[in-house]
Amino acid sequence: MSGKLSDDALDTLFRNARTQNAWTDQPVSDDELRAIYDLMKWAPTSANMSPARFVIVKSKEAKEKLLPALTEGNKAKTLAAPATVVIGYDVEFYEHLPKLFPHDLTAKTWFNWSAEWAEAHAFRNGSLQGAYFMIAARALGLDCGPMSGFDMGKVEEAFFPEKNVKVNFLCNIGHGDPKGLFDRSPRFDFDEVAKIV
Amino acid sequence: MSGKLSDDALDTLFRNARTQNAWTDQPVSDDELRAIYDLMKWAPTSANMSPARFVIVKSKEAKEKLLPALTEGNKAKTLAAPATVVIGYDVEFYEHLPKLFPHDLTAKTWFNWSAEWAEAHAFRNGSLQGAYFMIAARALGLDCGPMSGFDMGKVEEAFFPEKNVKVNFLCNIGHGDPKGLFDRSPRFDFDEVAKIV
Repeated sequence: MSGKLSDDALDTLFRNARTQNAWTDQPVSDDELRAIYDLMKWAPTSANMSPARFVIVKSKEAKEKLLPALTEGNKAKTLAAPATVVIGYDVEFYEHLPKLFPHDLTAKTWFNWSAEWAEAHAFRNGSLQGAYFMIAARALGLDCGPMSGFDMGKVEEAFFPEKNVKVNFLCNIGHGDPKGLFDRSPRFDFDEVAKIV
Repeated sequence: MSGKLSDDALDTLFRNARTQNAWTDQPVSDDELRAIYDLMKWAPTSANMSPARFVIVKSKEAKEKLLPALTEGNKAKTLAAPATVVIGYDVEFYEHLPKLFPHDLTAKTWFNWSAEWAEAHAFRNGSLQGAYFMIAARALGLDCGPMSGFDMGKVEEAFFPEKNVKVNFLCNIGHGDPKGLFDRSPRFDFDEVAKIV
């Protein structure tokens, strides 16, 4: 169905891409942020449940609401980033399945019988969508700086007051300044974490 | 740092890629499976924790071990797929942080103080890595068929007997036969699930 990407594209997505800690002054437009979403929305979730919810923090006022929730090490870089995406997941995603999964109108009942079961699915699939968001941003020539050092309760209070949405992680978006890079950390070799049986 | 991918590449990764339910006879080589890992391993996880663990089921014997754990609707397509990846996550990932996160040798203590806290991080980051695996497979010209319809206890007993690894989801890998495709389900518009503040 599909061809292999070029080596340049594989470098952009995976091999040369780095988690950025410093940012150039180049802004990220609302159109670019919408373009990221319009790519990542197509990637798969279980029963197309699409539980991820996004609040993209760009204004000075919204940054000031976010900052007190961050660990010290995450404050300066988040203030400097052109945009910070707050990625959450809707634990009541199943309410939307009659629209999102028209193949089977009983799909809602696969999940809504247990809050714990529904939340596990929302967390798994919302995390998949968080990854898709970052890869889509890279595919559009942007850099990412994901973070999980923050106070979840404070972020939810500030950005997801609707109670059915829990925060997953944050991700700065922009054009990275390589002066903020750490040395690259080692990865496991295939045979340390995978086997073919 | 990086350029925008071509429209063809964006189609391959996101816009034209589909969850496949039928497979051609074209095999997937062990080298291709290792190449997927050698791309996805570079994508970010919190403190580089890399909690995902993979058992790739290719042989007839291993497929027979997997099949009884699957829901009826997932059996025939899994039997037909050239490879089925069992994606798990190590809830004791923190034991490897002195190797994986050499910047700060105290990183292990950020996670090992609570089994519940460690497991949430393993599940989040292991799910990110599951998404990276699927996107890397597509980037190499392969198709994916992710599934969460299976008995988690049975899969763990068969493929992760080491107890510290929990199963996350399964993904068939191969070359999709479009005859198995469902009609594409609708996605949320940006303004239904995202806002810029």
